[in-house]
Amino acid sequence: MRHAAHCLHFATWLLLTRQNPQPEDRNPVDIQELRTRNPDHWMRATAIRALALDAVAAANSGHSGMPIGMADVATVLFSKHLKFDAAQPEWADRDRFILSAGHGSMLLYALLYLCGDPEITLEQVKNFRQLGAKTAGHPENFLAKAIETTTGPLGQGIANSVGFAIAEESLRARFGRKLIDHHTYVIAGDGCLMEGISHEAIGLAGRLELGHLIVFWDNNDITIDGKVSLSDRTDQVARFKASGWHVQEIDGHDPEAIDAAIDAAKKTGQPSMIACKSHIALGHAAQDTSKGHGALTNDDQNNAAKEAWGWTSAPFDIPAEVKSWWEKAGSRGAADRAEWETRLADMSAARQAEFTRVMTGEAPKKLSAVIKALKKQVSETAPKVATRKASEMALEVINPVMPETLGGSADLTGSNNTLTGDLGVFDTDNRKGRYIYYGIREHGMASAMNGMALHGGVRPYGGTFMAFTDYARPAMRLAALMQTPTVFVMTHDSIGLGEDGPTHQPVEHLAISRATPNTLVFRPADTVETAEAWEIALRQTGTPSVMSLTRQGLPTVRLEHKNANLTEKGAYVLADAEGKRQAILMATGSEVSIAMAARDLLQAEGIGTRVVSMPCWELFEAQDESYRRRVLPGGPVRVAVEAAVSFGWDRWLFGERGKRDKGAFVGMPGFGASAPAEELFKHFGITAEAVAEKVKGML
Amino acid sequence: MRHAAHCLHFATWLLLTRQNPQPEDRNPVDIQELRTRNPDHWMRATAIRALALDAVAAANSGHSGMPIGMADVATVLFSKHLKFDAAQPEWADRDRFILSAGHGSMLLYALLYLCGDPEITLEQVKNFRQLGAKTAGHPENFLAKAIETTTGPLGQGIANSVGFAIAEESLRARFGRKLIDHHTYVIAGDGCLMEGISHEAIGLAGRLELGHLIVFWDNNDITIDGKVSLSDRTDQVARFKASGWHVQEIDGHDPEAIDAAIDAAKKTGQPSMIACKSHIALGHAAQDTSKGHGALTNDDQNNAAKEAWGWTSAPFDIPAEVKSWWEKAGSRGAADRAEWETRLADMSAARQAEFTRVMTGEAPKKLSAVIKALKKQVSETAPKVATRKASEMALEVINPVMPETLGGSADLTGSNNTLTGDLGVFDTDNRKGRYIYYGIREHGMASAMNGMALHGGVRPYGGTFMAFTDYARPAMRLAALMQTPTVFVMTHDSIGLGEDGPTHQPVEHLAISRATPNTLVFRPADTVETAEAWEIALRQTGTPSVMSLTRQGLPTVRLEHKNANLTEKGAYVLADAEGKRQAILMATGSEVSIAMAARDLLQAEGIGTRVVSMPCWELFEAQDESYRRRVLPGGPVRVAVEAAVSFGWDRWLFGERGKRDKGAFVGMPGFGASAPAEELFKHFGITAEAVAEKVKGML
Repeated sequence: MRHAAHCLHFATWLLLTRQNPQPEDRNPVDIQELRTRNPDHWMRATAIRALALDAVAAANSGHSGMPIGMADVATVLFSKHLKFDAAQPEWADRDRFILSAGHGSMLLYALLYLCGDPEITLEQVKNFRQLGAKTAGHPENFLAKAIETTTGPLGQGIANSVGFAIAEESLRARFGRKLIDHHTYVIAGDGCLMEGISHEAIGLAGRLELGHLIVFWDNNDITIDGKVSLSDRTDQVARFKASGWHVQEIDGHDPEAIDAAIDAAKKTGQPSMIACKSHIALGHAAQDTSKGHGALTNDDQNNAAKEAWGWTSAPFDIPAEVKSWWEKAGSRGAADRAEWETRLADMSAARQAEFTRVMTGEAPKKLSAVIKALKKQVSETAPKVATRKASEMALEVINPVMPETLGGSADLTGSNNTLTGDLGVFDTDNRKGRYIYYGIREHGMASAMNGMALHGGVRPYGGTFMAFTDYARPAMRLAALMQTPTVFVMTHDSIGLGEDGPTHQPVEHLAISRATPNTLVFRPADTVETAEAWEIALRQTGTPSVMSLTRQGLPTVRLEHKNANLTEKGAYVLADAEGKRQAILMATGSEVSIAMAARDLLQAEGIGTRVVSMPCWELFEAQDESYRRRVLPGGPVRVAVEAAVSFGWDRWLFGERGKRDKGAFVGMPGFGASAPAEELFKHFGITAEAVAEKVKGML
Repeated sequence: MRHAAHCLHFATWLLLTRQNPQPEDRNPVDIQELRTRNPDHWMRATAIRALALDAVAAANSGHSGMPIGMADVATVLFSKHLKFDAAQPEWADRDRFILSAGHGSMLLYALLYLCGDPEITLEQVKNFRQLGAKTAGHPENFLAKAIETTTGPLGQGIANSVGFAIAEESLRARFGRKLIDHHTYVIAGDGCLMEGISHEAIGLAGRLELGHLIVFWDNNDITIDGKVSLSDRTDQVARFKASGWHVQEIDGHDPEAIDAAIDAAKKTGQPSMIACKSHIALGHAAQDTSKGHGALTNDDQNNAAKEAWGWTSAPFDIPAEVKSWWEKAGSRGAADRAEWETRLADMSAARQAEFTRVMTGEAPKKLSAVIKALKKQVSETAPKVATRKASEMALEVINPVMPETLGGSADLTGSNNTLTGDLGVFDTDNRKGRYIYYGIREHGMASAMNGMALHGGVRPYGGTFMAFTDYARPAMRLAALMQTPTVFVMTHDSIGLGEDGPTHQPVEHLAISRATPNTLVFRPADTVETAEAWEIALRQTGTPSVMSLTRQGLPTVRLEHKNANLTEKGAYVLADAEGKRQAILMATGSEVSIAMAARDLLQAEGIGTRVVSMPCWELFEAQDESYRRRVLPGGPVRVAVEAAVSFGWDRWLFGERGKRDKGAFVGMPGFGASAPAEELFKHFGITAEAVAEKVKGML
C-alpha cells in the first residue's frame, strides 16, 4: 500500500516536472520505507554507502554523496545485468561500466572490492586517495584492470562510452556475436550533462543508433554551487529524445524500477538514457544539499547516517553474508566467460590469432613492409605533395593490412585526407564500415576515439585542423594520461593554411602538444617522414600521437631510400655540411625544405651548413646524449626554423643543458593573418633568405 | 495562389520533420517565384549574393554558399530591425550582430559595404582575403569597428552572444533603458549547433532568460562532408525548447515570414531561436550540396547563377538604386543615435563620465589606492593563505571600487574564491547582480566572458580549476586573438591540489598559456603579488590574463611594503645573495617560498644565493635587455623551480639568447598523482633540499 502510494506520488511528480521544468525540492524520502521495502537489497546497496562514507572520512577528502545516492542503481546493475567476471577483469566480451561522474570513485572501488576484484582489495579501499594506492581520487584506468577509463574531467566518460559502443559494434560485425556482444553502461551526473562534450557525445550516439549504450543519469539536482536550477533548467529528458535516444524516468532508489528500466533499455535499438531521480547523500544530514557532494567527515553525522541506514558494522567491515552475496554477484559471469573461452578456442587458429592480436593492440607484421615499399617508391618519384596528402598515401597502404583501423574526421574529410578507398562508412546499416563521419564535434571525436582505444580491438584515428587541437584538448590530454594510442590527424598546421586567417592558423599548438607528457608530436617534412611517423604511431600501445600535417605541397627531401625508420630517432642529419661545419639549421615539417634552400644559399657562400630534420622532439629527447650530440654538436651556430611560436625551442637552440651554443629562431612572432600562404611566409619572414641572413649575422 | 501553395507545402514539411526527424531532401525551390514574389526585396538581397559570389571568386577561396543562402534573412534584419547607424559603428546602444557562422564572412562584409560602413569599402570587398585587408577570411574584430567579434571556430559566436546579452542586461539595469536597450542578433549554422559549446551557451541563455538574444539558425542541411544527416539527426527545435528558448520555424527565403518572426522574437521574455529553412548557394549549380559550402569559382556556373537571380550588373557593381536603398537602411538609426546622444548629454556629468569610463574599459582611479592599501596591510600582517584566497582578498577591495566587474565561476565558487560579499547574483529577478553561476560550463563561461568584454561596459572574470584551462582553451585563445581583457581565474594550479589526482593537477597548463600570444600569465607567490597581478590585469584593455592560483596556503614572501607594483616588471629580485653570488634561484607561485627556503639552506653553507620571483614571464620578456640582465646576470648557476613541466624554462635557464649559463630545473617529470599535497611535493622532489642539492651539484 505504501509502495503504491509512493509510486503514485512519484508519477505525479514526473508529470509536474515535465509540464513545468522549474526547480523543485526533492520529495521527502522515507529511509525506513526504503529499508523495509526490500531489506536484502537495502543492505547490499548500503554496503557501498558505508564503504564510501568510511573511505572518504578516512582520507578526509573525496566525494561521499554520489556513491551513497547511486548505490541502488549500481547494486541492481552489478548484480543482475552487468556481464562480467570479477576475477577476470580483462575478459574481452565483458560489459563495460564507466563512471562518468568520476568524483564518485568510491562507488566503483566499493563495487570492485565487494565483487572480489583481485586488485581492489580492502587494503586499497582503506588507502583511498593515498600515495601509491590504486584507489586514486578519481578512477585511473592505468592503476587497475577493472577501471575501464579515467574519469573526473566531466563529460569525458559519457563521450568515451560512445567510442566503447562503436568499438563493440565494429568488433561484433567483424568477429560475430559469439565473440563480441556486450553493453556499455555509464553513470553520468548533472556536471557531465552540462558540459558541452555531452552534447557532441549524445548527438553522435543518437545518429549512430548505438543500441548497446545505456546511460544512467544521476538526477540528484545538486551541483557544487547549489541546486542545479541555480545554473540550468534544461529538460534533459526532452534533450535526449531530441537526439534520438530512448529515455525512461525512474525512482533511482527503487530496485524493481531500476531492474525493469535496464531490461527495457536493452531491448531498444537506440542508445538509452535512464533518468534516475536520486537523493545525494541519502539518509545523511547533508542529503539533498551541495554539502553532500563533497567529503562528509563529521563523525557524529556519519554515525547518525549509518543508524538511519540500519548499518551496525564497524568501519570498513562488511557482514559476511553481504560480502558473500556480492562475491556471488561478482562471479555470476564466470560460466559465461568459460563458455566464451570455449567459443574462442573453437575458432580457426588464424581467427583466434587475429582476434588476440587486435585485442592486445599489436601492429600486424605486414605494416613494416608496406611502409618500406611506400618510402622506396616515394624516394624514387619525389612527388611534391602536402603532408596531409602524404598521410592519405600512407593510410592507403596501411588500412588494407590493418583491418582494425577506424578512421574519421570532424567534418573535414576532404581536407584531412583521412578517408581511403576501401574503408566503407560505419553506419546503422553497415557496422563493418571503418570510416566515421563524426560531424562538427572535435571534442566528441577525440574522446570517442579514446574510448575505442580503451575498449581495444580497434585502432582509431581522426582528423581536424591543427588549430582545433584547442577543441579536442581535454580529450587529447586524457589520451596521454590514460596511455591510449589514439592518433590525432591534425592538418593545416601553420600559416600555410593561408586565407582562412589566424583563427584557423595554429601557432602555439605544436608547443601545446609538445608540452603535454606522454605524447608523440610528429611534424613530418615529406611523404617519407609521414609514412615513418604513421608506422611509429601505429606501433604505440601506450602513447597517443599528434600528426601535424601541412595543407600546402612540399617537395620530397628524403631522396635516398633507407629501410631504417629515421623518424624513430626523433631528429637526424638530413644533409651535412660540405667543408667546415659552421652552422646547423634545425627545422620540422614544411620548414625543412626552407632550411634545405637556406643551406644551398649558405654553402654557395662557402658556409658549411648541416640541416637537421626534427620530426619528433620527444623521440629525440629519448635518445642517449651521445646521439643527440652527434646530431647537434657544439660549436656551430644554430638556427631553428618553424612556422610557429618559438616557445620550447630554446631546449635545442642552446644544446645540451648547461652547454654553450649560439642560437636564433625564425618563425612566428604571434598570430597569423589572412592571405595566400606564400605571401604569409614572406610577410612573416620565414624564408630561406631570412634563415641564411640569421646565420650570417651570428658568424 | 502560388504563395499559398508554397506555405501549405512548407507547413506540411514542418509537420513531417517534427514527427519524424529523418533526413529529407530540400524542397525544390522556384527562383522565379522568389524573384517575382517580392522583386524589390529580391534585388536588395541579391546584391549580397552577387558581392559574395564575386569576392570569393576573385580571392579564389572562401565560402560563397552561406551568404547566398542567408541573404534574405540578413536583408530583413539589417533593413527593418537592426538598430545601428552605419556611420557610427561604435554607438554604445547599437544592436549587436554576430556572424557565428564566421566562414560566411562575405555576408557581413557585403552588408557593411552596402550600408555605408566607413571602413568596409568596395576596395576592401575586392581585396577579400588578401594581406592587409580588413576583409579577412573570417571576421576579425580588431580589423574593423563594425565587426563585433572574431568568428570562425564554430560555436564561439553563439557563445559570445550570451555574454553580449548578459552585458546588455547588466548595463540596462545599471544605467537605465534610456542609455542601454538593444538586442543581440546571431546567425548560427549547423556547425555552431553541433559543437559542444553551443549546448553550454544555449543552456546558460535559457536559464538566465536573456530575452534580448535572438539567434537565426541557418538550417540549410549541409556540412562540409555532406548532408547534416550524415552525422546528426538532432531535432534542434526540440533541443532549444528543452533549454527554455522561444522557437519559431520559418522559410528563410520569405521576407514577410522573417519580419514577422523577428517581431515575435522581440516580444518574448526568452531567448529566441528562429529556424530558417534555407538553401545554401541558392540558385547556383551547387545549391543544396556540400560543394556549395566552399568557394564557387566556376565562371560559367557563377554567371548562370546570376542569370537565374536576374542579376545583370558587372562583377562588384551594385545598381545605384539598390545601393542607395541599402545606404538608407544603414542610416536608419542615425536619428535614434542622435536622440541617444542627447539623452546621454542630459545626464549628470558624473554619470556621463562613469558611463564613458566603463565603455572605454578604463580602470577607476581608486584601483591603485585600494591595491596599495591591501599590499601594505598584507606585508605587515604576513598571512599564510592560498593565492586563491589572496585573490578573493584582492577582489574584496576591487569590486567595491569597480562596479563594472561581473564575476563568476563554472560551479566552483567556493573553490575559486570568486564571489565577494557585495556582488549579488545576476539572475532573472536581479539584473543588477554581479555574480554569475555559470554552471559546469568552462568553455561557455570563457566564451561568454569574451562576449561581455567585447560588448564593453563590464569587466568579466571567471573561475575554474587550472587543469580545466583545457576545456576553456578555444575561448582563451580567442580572447588573446581578439584582444579582450578577459580575466581567467584558474585555481588549484599544481599538484598542490592533492588528492583529486592527475586529471585535476595541471602540469602543462602554464606552458600552454605562456605559449599563447598576447596573454599575460600570472603565477603570484603570495597575497602581495596576487594583488599586483589583479591590478595589472584590470588595467589591460587589449590583453587577457590568466591567474594561476594555489589551493594550498603560502607564506607571505613580500614582507617589505613597496608602493611600486613589482609584478609589473614580470620578474624581480626578491632576495639577493649575501656574499659572493654563486646561484640564482628562479621560481613562480607556490615554489617561490621553496626557493626562499633553499636559499636559507645554501646561505647557511656560505653559498651566496639570489632568489628571483617571476610572476609573469611575458612582462619580464617585455623589459629591456639591461633590466633582464640585472635580474638574471650571467655567471652564477641557475635553478628554476616550478611544480609543472620544464617546457619553456630553457628560455631563462640559459640567459639571454646566445649567452652562456649553467641551468637546471626542479619540477614535474610528467603527470601528477593522487595523494595529500605535501606528500606529492616530497614524492616528486620539489623541495628546498632538492633545489639546494641541484645548486651544489653544479657548483
